[in-house]
Amino acid sequence: MGDPAGIGPEICLRAMTQPEILRRCIPILFGSIDVIRRIVAKCRLDLPDLVFQLDDWQKKPACKRPAIVNCVNVNAANIIPGQTSRQCGTIAYSCIKAAVSAAMTGNISAVVTAPINKESLNAAGIHFPGHTEILASLTKARRTCMMMASEQIIVSLATIHMPYTQVPEILSRKTIFDAIELTALAAENLLGKKPRIAVCALNPHAGEHGLFGNEEKRLITPAILKARNKGILAEGPFASDTAFLPEKTKTFDAYVAMYHDQGLIPFKMRAFDTGVNITLGLPIVRTSVDHGTAFDIAWKGKASPNSLIQSVFWALRLIGERNKYKTLE
Amino acid sequence: MGDPAGIGPEICLRAMTQPEILRRCIPILFGSIDVIRRIVAKCRLDLPDLVFQLDDWQKKPACKRPAIVNCVNVNAANIIPGQTSRQCGTIAYSCIKAAVSAAMTGNISAVVTAPINKESLNAAGIHFPGHTEILASLTKARRTCMMMASEQIIVSLATIHMPYTQVPEILSRKTIFDAIELTALAAENLLGKKPRIAVCALNPHAGEHGLFGNEEKRLITPAILKARNKGILAEGPFASDTAFLPEKTKTFDAYVAMYHDQGLIPFKMRAFDTGVNITLGLPIVRTSVDHGTAFDIAWKGKASPNSLIQSVFWALRLIGERNKYKTLE
Repeated sequence: MGDPAGIGPEICLRAMTQPEILRRCIPILFGSIDVIRRIVAKCRLDLPDLVFQLDDWQKKPACKRPAIVNCVNVNAANIIPGQTSRQCGTIAYSCIKAAVSAAMTGNISAVVTAPINKESLNAAGIHFPGHTEILASLTKARRTCMMMASEQIIVSLATIHMPYTQVPEILSRKTIFDAIELTALAAENLLGKKPRIAVCALNPHAGEHGLFGNEEKRLITPAILKARNKGILAEGPFASDTAFLPEKTKTFDAYVAMYHDQGLIPFKMRAFDTGVNITLGLPIVRTSVDHGTAFDIAWKGKASPNSLIQSVFWALRLIGERNKYKTLE
Repeated sequence: MGDPAGIGPEICLRAMTQPEILRRCIPILFGSIDVIRRIVAKCRLDLPDLVFQLDDWQKKPACKRPAIVNCVNVNAANIIPGQTSRQCGTIAYSCIKAAVSAAMTGNISAVVTAPINKESLNAAGIHFPGHTEILASLTKARRTCMMMASEQIIVSLATIHMPYTQVPEILSRKTIFDAIELTALAAENLLGKKPRIAVCALNPHAGEHGLFGNEEKRLITPAILKARNKGILAEGPFASDTAFLPEKTKTFDAYVAMYHDQGLIPFKMRAFDTGVNITLGLPIVRTSVDHGTAFDIAWKGKASPNSLIQSVFWALRLIGERNKYKTLE
């Protein structure tokens, strides 16, 4: 359910009662019953009786109806909507951990995450720059890659949440190649065809033949060549200021950007609020909303579940809707 | 006329015969007569007789009709369209120098430049990363700023043509403040009102309260505060992945980006091929096309003068069309 002081619980409750969601999967909400009760009352949510509470879900995992799993016993009276706190960080992390554990044991088919707050997590002693890194750690993934997906454009990032100055230190042939390979795999899964991947340059004008930096020649081109040798249709490195013009977005099925803003500026401009965050390289399927906790409208009954609903649909695309819900029966 | 081996001369000739251009100003082409003769023949350009050649223009500056100024005596037989060469670099630089000199003495009201090739300039011993830096040097400008303008969006850059890794070294409170101040001045001139300026962050999520870098706190916020103290309506620093969404572009009249691709990815996506490059901070008015030499279609009669025509119109907006053409008579 994400950070309890944000819009996460509300959008989860709204999404899991949508007819289209219920038609296509069985939603299980990993949260805190006390937090949810308060938000239901505060936001005056009308929850149909199909959503029931399941306190000891881990002991009776065979669940054939939408459910709310109580991942942590807390008194939510202290939570102030829109404020960071150690308690909120602890609750948010407990929910992620429980959901990931259920996915790792095959009890659920995919994890769809609501927004978290990094300051609350830090206050709770959970030191990760983002969701992706938490999931990589919990699942012991060898390599991961953050992909943003929408009907209009798909963009993966070779580096994610770090200062601008750290990007060149982290970029290597391996990180770039991993991003290309994971993107090609996921895009093929999503699109049902061998995708064409555009790889961005790091420097302006793609380094202008070495006049403005050599990462293109030293790192990016070798990574692209390695990918091509493995049969991946990767091209580039392309100067990023023209890489996202319509003639290129029509030609390519997915992009690999070298850093956060290089990929997310064009992604958000094209996909607006329909984007979904997908973590590649994990042993589980994981998608996420592409917005934050929206503290300004938390617990006010005004939050839109659209991005979360899209995240569920993309998760279903990734698992192919074959295995809607595994039970242990 | 830009690099002689590119599309520069062709688009200049096409632009200066457009009725709308001729109605609003007197175009003077700074070029090489021999290069232009060959391109006219090769591209089968139909030049109306209103364009005449003026070899000794510097001696007789009183010119009331469109003219071609022969800035350099060369035998253009060696020039291969679409190829870089020392000769092309020399010719391109001579044209810029002559045009700037005419603007500095007040013989012309503005300089509108066609695309140059940096490799040819380097081969000719002219070592500048771009046009902007050449103009700053020729006019001895104390500070300059590159602005990209279009009807849809206006973006200035605090740093321009340099490797990704060099940006944090060059960024300072002063470079950022200068960019904000020059942008505010130019935008007020262009829009006829006190503009609202959005300033981008350097780091993802605007540094996320220091978790991902401190340039926001250390450099950008102080520069914004200094600008606000001078009465400039500057705001930020904004996380750049959401700064260019429609709700923000509607609110702000111009942006200041911290580096090339941060500003030019969103600019080119919004303005597509209508963008114009304006150099702020020079003692002369200077605009430029926002495309390159297009070596693949050079001397083929296929080049579109649209961006150059737009550049002339933006130059006219900057000088207010008050002083269409100064003569020494």
